[in-house]
Amino acid sequence: MKARNFVNATGPSAPHQQPCVYGIHPVSEWLRACPVRLRTVHYEPRSAHRLAELLRRAESVGVAARPSDERALAAMAGTPHHQGVVASAAPFPYGEPDALSTTTAQLLLAADQLQDPHNLGALLRTAEAVGAGGVITPKDNSVPVTATVEAAAAGAAALIPVYRVTNLTRTLQAVKKRGYWIVGLMAHGGIDLFQFSAPDRVILVVGGETGMRPLVARQCDFAVSIPMFGRVESLNASVAAAIIAYELRRQWWVA
Amino acid sequence: MKARNFVNATGPSAPHQQPCVYGIHPVSEWLRACPVRLRTVHYEPRSAHRLAELLRRAESVGVAARPSDERALAAMAGTPHHQGVVASAAPFPYGEPDALSTTTAQLLLAADQLQDPHNLGALLRTAEAVGAGGVITPKDNSVPVTATVEAAAAGAAALIPVYRVTNLTRTLQAVKKRGYWIVGLMAHGGIDLFQFSAPDRVILVVGGETGMRPLVARQCDFAVSIPMFGRVESLNASVAAAIIAYELRRQWWVA
Repeated sequence: MKARNFVNATGPSAPHQQPCVYGIHPVSEWLRACPVRLRTVHYEPRSAHRLAELLRRAESVGVAARPSDERALAAMAGTPHHQGVVASAAPFPYGEPDALSTTTAQLLLAADQLQDPHNLGALLRTAEAVGAGGVITPKDNSVPVTATVEAAAAGAAALIPVYRVTNLTRTLQAVKKRGYWIVGLMAHGGIDLFQFSAPDRVILVVGGETGMRPLVARQCDFAVSIPMFGRVESLNASVAAAIIAYELRRQWWVA
Repeated sequence: MKARNFVNATGPSAPHQQPCVYGIHPVSEWLRACPVRLRTVHYEPRSAHRLAELLRRAESVGVAARPSDERALAAMAGTPHHQGVVASAAPFPYGEPDALSTTTAQLLLAADQLQDPHNLGALLRTAEAVGAGGVITPKDNSVPVTATVEAAAAGAAALIPVYRVTNLTRTLQAVKKRGYWIVGLMAHGGIDLFQFSAPDRVILVVGGETGMRPLVARQCDFAVSIPMFGRVESLNASVAAAIIAYELRRQWWVA
């Protein structure tokens, strides 16, 4: 599914609008992969012949389909390019704070000020692949889990808990008390990753496109930097997180 | 610079069109970062007041500016959303095949069937950061270095040679004769990365969204897989390449 085929109605620009998915292929994909998140498929009756397969699928997974008109569909999708079909969706189910306060996963990820939905999506995919127990992201200055994020995560968003917290600093402090070490990724000046010894239990914190906030950085027990052998100043945030997370896993595996 | 503000006129859909950049911010960025690639700045005289700073910058770096009209600008940009300015650009300067046949870099990267420009851009950025000597990509079934790729590479495309070859299999065979070991990334079934011992000199080959072609895979001396601890089936290609490339670097650093 192409990320650009989604409306992000969970983003800050449309706080009261219901999340939705539009376009034949994206709606079909959601019907296949995650029907429980879909509420109603709204379609233009004149497009019904092109939508026959999609409507059959909706029926078979128990998602209601309702005829609608061009104008209503465009209003829901926020664009006229909806191909005659818009599905309203339930909001993304974030992880329960209680689960975060009892998790015993060896690795958690946290992202501060990550604003690019593709980056957050890639981070969720990596976090799930590396066996992290969850991803923590603050409500402020960070992209929520939109349909674009879910598409970029290639299914991982449904498989790993995402905790959206009001105060990341306080959350880090709380989890720290339960035996986690906070490892922050810094573009420069941290301990060289190749010389870093992984503590037993880690929250890996990465900053977004503009880095992490000083208050968050101050919570870190270790600042780690990835050695740079060329002239570019930094790596993509999700790439950098993957390199460090896998190095932690490797050290735990060797030990 | 936002990738979506560029026309990709170097892509297969517009083979005879000259590459160009459009929009106030993208053209300004290119004037700042890479003026030698820009040929002429075409602008709509009625937009001149909004473009004053940009036109001054063009003059100061020696790029000619020419008044034009809406219709001509839209034809060049391929969209009416050009904000009154379109700059024609020289094609991306690929690395010379001769340089590839004499390189002594310890690490080279090759990407087969990579079609997503953001993925190729991220790969170039990682390749430069990890100190690879170049990135090899075939002419067929792979995205060329478009403006979108360059934007996603965050400057790295100007810093690392990209070799675009007619026959990737033959190129790998030729480089292999010069002492390189071909390490292929496989989603499943390869040697576990945590148990893999890096050879002295490596070409790391990654497949794109649809994997690598069997003929290319057959050239690999080693197939390596990244251990997956969750339920997603694979990692993003550029993320996976970064994890392996940094593990090779780590082993060489330790040795």
